[in-house]
Amino acid sequence: MRITSTFAETRDLARGGVGLVPTMGFLHEGHLSLADAARRECDTVVMSLFVNPLQFGEGEDLARYPRDPEGDAALAEAAGVDVLFAPQVAEMYPRAPLTRVTVAEMSERLEGGRRPGHFTGVATVVAKLFAGTHPDRAYFGRKDAQQLAIVRRMASDLSFPLQIVGVPIVREVGGLALSSRNWYLSPEERQRATALSRGLMGAADAAEAGVTDAAALTQLVWDEMAAAAGVEPEYAALAAAEDAAPLDVLDRPAFLAVAARVGPARLIDNIHLDPAGDGFAADRGVELTAPSLLYREGRGRPYVHAESLEEG
Amino acid sequence: MRITSTFAETRDLARGGVGLVPTMGFLHEGHLSLADAARRECDTVVMSLFVNPLQFGEGEDLARYPRDPEGDAALAEAAGVDVLFAPQVAEMYPRAPLTRVTVAEMSERLEGGRRPGHFTGVATVVAKLFAGTHPDRAYFGRKDAQQLAIVRRMASDLSFPLQIVGVPIVREVGGLALSSRNWYLSPEERQRATALSRGLMGAADAAEAGVTDAAALTQLVWDEMAAAAGVEPEYAALAAAEDAAPLDVLDRPAFLAVAARVGPARLIDNIHLDPAGDGFAADRGVELTAPSLLYREGRGRPYVHAESLEEG
Repeated sequence: MRITSTFAETRDLARGGVGLVPTMGFLHEGHLSLADAARRECDTVVMSLFVNPLQFGEGEDLARYPRDPEGDAALAEAAGVDVLFAPQVAEMYPRAPLTRVTVAEMSERLEGGRRPGHFTGVATVVAKLFAGTHPDRAYFGRKDAQQLAIVRRMASDLSFPLQIVGVPIVREVGGLALSSRNWYLSPEERQRATALSRGLMGAADAAEAGVTDAAALTQLVWDEMAAAAGVEPEYAALAAAEDAAPLDVLDRPAFLAVAARVGPARLIDNIHLDPAGDGFAADRGVELTAPSLLYREGRGRPYVHAESLEEG
Repeated sequence: MRITSTFAETRDLARGGVGLVPTMGFLHEGHLSLADAARRECDTVVMSLFVNPLQFGEGEDLARYPRDPEGDAALAEAAGVDVLFAPQVAEMYPRAPLTRVTVAEMSERLEGGRRPGHFTGVATVVAKLFAGTHPDRAYFGRKDAQQLAIVRRMASDLSFPLQIVGVPIVREVGGLALSSRNWYLSPEERQRATALSRGLMGAADAAEAGVTDAAALTQLVWDEMAAAAGVEPEYAALAAAEDAAPLDVLDRPAFLAVAARVGPARLIDNIHLDPAGDGFAADRGVELTAPSLLYREGRGRPYVHAESLEEG
């Protein structure tokens, strides 16, 4: 594996079909499943590792976002990544950028309503990665369902000649969706946070059993979250997979999305619901059988619990 | 020369160093000078020909913008263009695009103030052409000085791996800067419209003689325009070449820009002023020695004079 810090060097090393795996680092099994998918489908796997300031709002956790560049390099190497593109801020933003890539409407919903400017930061940096590395395929987790929809739309609207691949969520033992931000949680908080996935799984069962009323489905998730100590639900919503528009009835590919605060972290999760036969089938993701490597000895700093990271 | 209508086919035909010449068609000697520059510097010259609805405002001249696809193909062929990419609206915008590329601050000045949304439409379609055709160099006329600055900034901010080349203005006999919109003018109006370039040349002389006061330079141009019958000046301004910011003093690479209405058309022109020795040297552009091919028999429809095209 080669480690690069400039777009030019990254492009020079990429040959044949190029699969891009954009990440913010602090890798876990979710990222590695993206790299696995890329390795199966592409000649060269390029993983980018960049904590993008443009997608963090005021008061969010940019400064404290967990980082572990050496650990990430070892994990990427083991996952078969060919080129790890780990630019400094000066390569990505040599001066304050005036240019923004915006995706109207889709960016205002769900997460967009809670995190103003977040998806413009995402769309801008992803467009930049696409423009600078010329991938043939790019891999994104289904965990960030709205992001996936926005990136798809951006790539199509701007005629980037590539395929966007959505990869199922990887879950910790017990169901919690993997996120680098889980590292903010104590073992007890991680246990409490399973309410999100437990609620979603219950709703997935209901959807597969024929329930199509959005209010009924979201109520199932909400009740499960609201009943859990230490979990503050923010929203539960059924949204169209294509554009994250709110749905009253499950009548097309969709995702059931939740957001909640648990201790010092703000967590999101979802299940995708795809038409199958006369009804719908849920993509529940994949559950690990052992503790995530997020919690391996030596990764990052000790847990931080004293304050809310998004208000710090 | 091959004529294509899809991005995929255009990319397939482009080999080696690719030079892109984006145009809205109705080609004149200004466009051909871009193709000449590209042919000297690139293995494959791709010219795009697309009247981009996104960069026309309400009440502007989209519907009447002059078109001559057969004439354009013959001229492009003669100019050594290898691939003429002439997409339909359905290839460029298969659905109403939600994505926009904006370049803050720079897009609000000068033309941006008069044509709200114009530069967002330009930046979006140019980003799309860059994303879809992977050029190594892209050629733009210095006539649209602010556009050139915005495109440079967009390409840099988004890490497109290409060089933007600015090419000097080509002028008709008598000095009028070539524009497809000159075709809206009667011979008499074209004569009147030389007030713009005459004023700019006077100011260029003054700048080369050491005048650096923006007010003095712009006054020279304004007076020349205001004295001409049938010319309604809109602005005369000295702006930094890098970001189109207004300058009080000529102390860096700059352009002196004017806009005016003449009969049914809204015209713009400028001279670039670049540091040279202790002072500044003006790029006055290149003057034709014979009537422009814009006025060749058989190009486009008969002149339209009855109404203002931007209010139609």
